[in-house]
Amino acid sequence: MLDHKQVQDYIRTIPNFPHDGIMFRDVTTLFQDPRGFRLAVDQLLAPFVGQRIDKVAGLEARGFILGGAVAHQLSKGFVPIRKAGKLPARTIAQDYELEYGRATVEIHDDAFSPGETVLLVDDLLATGGTAEAGIKLIERLGAEVMGTAFVVDLPDLGGRARLEAMGMSVHALCSYEGD
Amino acid sequence: MLDHKQVQDYIRTIPNFPHDGIMFRDVTTLFQDPRGFRLAVDQLLAPFVGQRIDKVAGLEARGFILGGAVAHQLSKGFVPIRKAGKLPARTIAQDYELEYGRATVEIHDDAFSPGETVLLVDDLLATGGTAEAGIKLIERLGAEVMGTAFVVDLPDLGGRARLEAMGMSVHALCSYEGD
Repeated sequence: MLDHKQVQDYIRTIPNFPHDGIMFRDVTTLFQDPRGFRLAVDQLLAPFVGQRIDKVAGLEARGFILGGAVAHQLSKGFVPIRKAGKLPARTIAQDYELEYGRATVEIHDDAFSPGETVLLVDDLLATGGTAEAGIKLIERLGAEVMGTAFVVDLPDLGGRARLEAMGMSVHALCSYEGD
Repeated sequence: MLDHKQVQDYIRTIPNFPHDGIMFRDVTTLFQDPRGFRLAVDQLLAPFVGQRIDKVAGLEARGFILGGAVAHQLSKGFVPIRKAGKLPARTIAQDYELEYGRATVEIHDDAFSPGETVLLVDDLLATGGTAEAGIKLIERLGAEVMGTAFVVDLPDLGGRARLEAMGMSVHALCSYEGD
């Protein structure tokens, strides 16, 4: 019997998390399923087959799960983009706006060599603030973001439009409108 | 020309991070190197070849990078063990002691089915507090931790002895004494 479940079928929706009115798209049920996890990695990479990817970068923390698997599938290295203060060696930092206030992400300043091509992955694209900051960090090190890939896209929150306005290619496996 | 670098050769030591007197063992230089990352995953799994592993669990946050890659290599699912308040669905929680105070880790209460066998991975074994809490969470859900695997072991901090006293198998790729 064939299993016709698609990536979206493995994702669980949790109403009112982390606060009232938010429909949280929970990818842990996708990642904990062996078929779901492999399907997500395969589909995430499908548009990039044959393209040069020197390294994979992922955003803390769920982007690490996916990024580790994607880098492994490609036999490439993985670079973490982390919240401020977490990386031990010399870093560069990039601020971005939150709904209330600002936050900062960092990357090791020797994570990339100039000219390397990088695929940026995360589980979910919402406002795109963290992704944009991640792209800026990678570019400030002289590397090139050749694409961005997400499991879930919430287009109403503007992230896709924001990244595309930067000239980025945005690949997402599924999309929830009205979020 | 053959590359004879071992896993330990890819690890960078940062003195006095996160505070004075700590020699921080930085695995990001291992993970960002394509050969180093693959070597780490292969060696992490080497002792478990032929054994039944139903799922891989990883500890937030660096354990997610490694765990995602290990689960992918095994074609199994990945389960995150997270700091309190991060997981959206129903969780169980486990406290553990820190040098000053206590902390809590959580797991989704439907992450495992009773009887499943689980490999627990993290980048580094120090006091073993988080790993012990993770093991307890997995066992409270009726699953069995068939082994634990780390890139770095700091045996002077007692984690290995602590996990072995629980009857756990502990596999580490390299060890730093005097830390």
